[in-house]
Amino acid sequence: MNSVTHIRDLGVEGVHRVIEQALTWKRTDPGQHLAGKLLGMVFFNPSLRTRTSFEAAMIRGGGHAVVLEVGGGVWKLEHNDVRMDQDKTEHLREAVPVLGRYLDALAVRSFSQGGGDAEDEADAVVNGFAQYSSVPVISMESAREHPCQGLADLLTLRERFGNLKGLPLTLSWAPHIKPLPKAVPNSFLLTAAAMGCEVRVAHPQGYDLYGPVLAEAKELAQEAGGSVDVTGSQKVALAGSVALYAKAWGPSDPSAFVSDSNRDWMPTLEHFDSMSPEAVLMHCLPVRRDLEVAAEVLDSARSAVIDEAENRFHVQRVLLHRALQGEI
Amino acid sequence: MNSVTHIRDLGVEGVHRVIEQALTWKRTDPGQHLAGKLLGMVFFNPSLRTRTSFEAAMIRGGGHAVVLEVGGGVWKLEHNDVRMDQDKTEHLREAVPVLGRYLDALAVRSFSQGGGDAEDEADAVVNGFAQYSSVPVISMESAREHPCQGLADLLTLRERFGNLKGLPLTLSWAPHIKPLPKAVPNSFLLTAAAMGCEVRVAHPQGYDLYGPVLAEAKELAQEAGGSVDVTGSQKVALAGSVALYAKAWGPSDPSAFVSDSNRDWMPTLEHFDSMSPEAVLMHCLPVRRDLEVAAEVLDSARSAVIDEAENRFHVQRVLLHRALQGEI
Amino acid sequence: MNSVTHIRDLGVEGVHRVIEQALTWKRTDPGQHLAGKLLGMVFFNPSLRTRTSFEAAMIRGGGHAVVLEVGGGVWKLEHNDVRMDQDKTEHLREAVPVLGRYLDALAVRSFSQGGGDAEDEADAVVNGFAQYSSVPVISMESAREHPCQGLADLLTLRERFGNLKGLPLTLSWAPHIKPLPKAVPNSFLLTAAAMGCEVRVAHPQGYDLYGPVLAEAKELAQEAGGSVDVTGSQKVALAGSVALYAKAWGPSDPSAFVSDSNRDWMPTLEHFDSMSPEAVLMHCLPVRRDLEVAAEVLDSARSAVIDEAENRFHVQRVLLHRALQGEI
Repeated sequence: MNSVTHIRDLGVEGVHRVIEQALTWKRTDPGQHLAGKLLGMVFFNPSLRTRTSFEAAMIRGGGHAVVLEVGGGVWKLEHNDVRMDQDKTEHLREAVPVLGRYLDALAVRSFSQGGGDAEDEADAVVNGFAQYSSVPVISMESAREHPCQGLADLLTLRERFGNLKGLPLTLSWAPHIKPLPKAVPNSFLLTAAAMGCEVRVAHPQGYDLYGPVLAEAKELAQEAGGSVDVTGSQKVALAGSVALYAKAWGPSDPSAFVSDSNRDWMPTLEHFDSMSPEAVLMHCLPVRRDLEVAAEVLDSARSAVIDEAENRFHVQRVLLHRALQGEI
Repeated sequence: MNSVTHIRDLGVEGVHRVIEQALTWKRTDPGQHLAGKLLGMVFFNPSLRTRTSFEAAMIRGGGHAVVLEVGGGVWKLEHNDVRMDQDKTEHLREAVPVLGRYLDALAVRSFSQGGGDAEDEADAVVNGFAQYSSVPVISMESAREHPCQGLADLLTLRERFGNLKGLPLTLSWAPHIKPLPKAVPNSFLLTAAAMGCEVRVAHPQGYDLYGPVLAEAKELAQEAGGSVDVTGSQKVALAGSVALYAKAWGPSDPSAFVSDSNRDWMPTLEHFDSMSPEAVLMHCLPVRRDLEVAAEVLDSARSAVIDEAENRFHVQRVLLHRALQGEI
Repeated sequence: MNSVTHIRDLGVEGVHRVIEQALTWKRTDPGQHLAGKLLGMVFFNPSLRTRTSFEAAMIRGGGHAVVLEVGGGVWKLEHNDVRMDQDKTEHLREAVPVLGRYLDALAVRSFSQGGGDAEDEADAVVNGFAQYSSVPVISMESAREHPCQGLADLLTLRERFGNLKGLPLTLSWAPHIKPLPKAVPNSFLLTAAAMGCEVRVAHPQGYDLYGPVLAEAKELAQEAGGSVDVTGSQKVALAGSVALYAKAWGPSDPSAFVSDSNRDWMPTLEHFDSMSPEAVLMHCLPVRRDLEVAAEVLDSARSAVIDEAENRFHVQRVLLHRALQGEI
């Protein structure tokens, strides 16, 4: 079906191909490569970058996008096979095939419902879209992953550091007032592993990433010639790293969440002292200033966050192109 | 004004013309027939199919659509001539002429407010749009009718069964947890009558369609060489029918509604035993599985619901084209 | 940066230039003058005319628009430099530069928060956009001003009365059930002053426009050869005026608001008796009938309100063109 809902749909070779093509197209614009194509963007959750960068990718490529907001302009959608006597008006089993009759591809955003790692791993909504769709489906973030973000992050590193194989990177947990989903850390981990980086994951006790995701990352790393290591010490991880990817996520036990805890994990300029001289701060955005990341870092030359955001556009137009050409 | 807000705006000849042209354009794409045209889509209520199929029709024809959500991105609109000291910020008497200065046509969705048959018959909002507009207005469902749905339904039957004259069809009431509007059953009835079908309406006691709608359907049937009959027995209606159009609607007396009543009216595969061997299940969607229609029917080859939805696109681009060409 | 967030960004010469070019383009369509251009429209508040006229301007010029609704499809945005531990998810310092990577220009609507004249004068949100943006920013109404409305209003007068220098106009306060912002009266005042009109401002006691705005208007009037006078008597102001611009706004002391007070300030046909024979009723819309303006005036030939609304399109496509060409 040429869908991309998880990094495993691309694999090591596919991840490399997307990033290299994005790099090429950033230098040499592909022109009207999406002419006549119509993308449906289905949002179960809000968006700023994703919405704008996907719509811009379609339009600048000569195509168009239709935006559908579930629970807003569109009624609520059911994905479980139940007698539908509650508040959800339509099932994905009808909605998705119908959209496929009007549109050339679908993009879907459906965040984690906060039910825990196993529920996120099942990723029922985005998998339902992929299952019922007759046209390619691209994830705009689901419970388990945000593959476009991971690809944009690695394109940013590819531009700054050239060859990514063996590059030491730290994915560091950060404080927050809410237990955020793990889709972004999962995707950075999986994509960096697929690019053969030396990935160091640092988080306080109780904030483990989910086992099957870590296992998948390690397999990708092995295939790509990189590594994945986990530590409870942010300091150990940062030493010599070229990137500090800061990201808040919730604890393995949702009920164990403590708001605004572990404040010393928030990156400040001081955190860069032991890192590589050219080290950068990465974040998927939106970022809460002086809560997740110190404003002094975001406002410094260390910050790569605006470039990461721009690269969403570049990787997504490659994904859209390949999906619509049947080349995933 | 070349507006289409009710089936009577087309009449028997117009309904035939739209369906035949849609059939032709489904085989031979009309290309950029809407180039340079701009449609305003005004939603007082949510939408999935209607929103997407209208927007797709405009874009695939070379035009564009602007989507306005009343009570969301757009403030509430008044249609009664009152001193405006309540929560509605702008009157249709200003809003509609203003939109006509920017746009080439308007499409409007404004559901029944549940005030009963006489209020639905008056259809104040969509009629206000048609009255105040300097550009064509097309209904995307109003209190009384959903003409695009009726046209799409009959195109679906036209494709499956060829000549529609005298074709036995059943429009059957279905259970629901809410007293739904009658716009869809009204439109199927009127459009099928205009195509000369033998329409059998079946519903439990207390769920009569409104007299003036039935009378109009009978007039259309007479002109087109068909018939309209009403029965309290679903079984009698289904015998020999080629289509079971299942649709929930509320009782004539809104206060008499009983949630989830008459469960045996929900179509199951067994309901097809007495029907024509090639009989199909029809529904406008969204459909609540195992409440309005059994999942076993929706998941079977009996179901024509996805085709009906696709045909929304095909009839709407004909309506948009004719309205913008001044040929309604 | 070629942004237009306030009338002072244009000045007397710029205001004249925009209005004359809009007049020319109303006669001779500029064609695909925005081809390949992509505008991001960021709404903190609802819109009907602004949304539709900006989107129409982009599309008819060959470009496209992406619509973002803050607090709806987009999360809430912070503009103050604070530790972000409340309900706002992203700071303008990130959001605006990111949008500039995808889009060629931004349009922003952010109404007054009702915190009083000094807060409106600071105009923090629209000024934040202009400050952080790498692409031109155009105001779609902020706390202090609604420059596109002022320009459309004066284009309407230019069309009706030719030379505007010395033309006597009345900006009259009108009753309402809410203390509305002053952006529209401010903009009409500033733009009319910049066109050299004889502007008479009439309002009940306690409803003064803010001092710095009045002072700026008087400076513009002096440069342009016009005048600005304020009176507490609507009758005195109207005598001989060619336009009655009716607009509700709140009192200088927000706590002093009395709903629906000063009812005799609502324009009726009788109010036109002492005015010029060709005098017109102006209003930015939305207007509440029989509360702010009598329906009998809105439904008469006196009303210029639909023309004013149409002219939003005409001045905006000039602003968009000039901003994107770097010619503001």
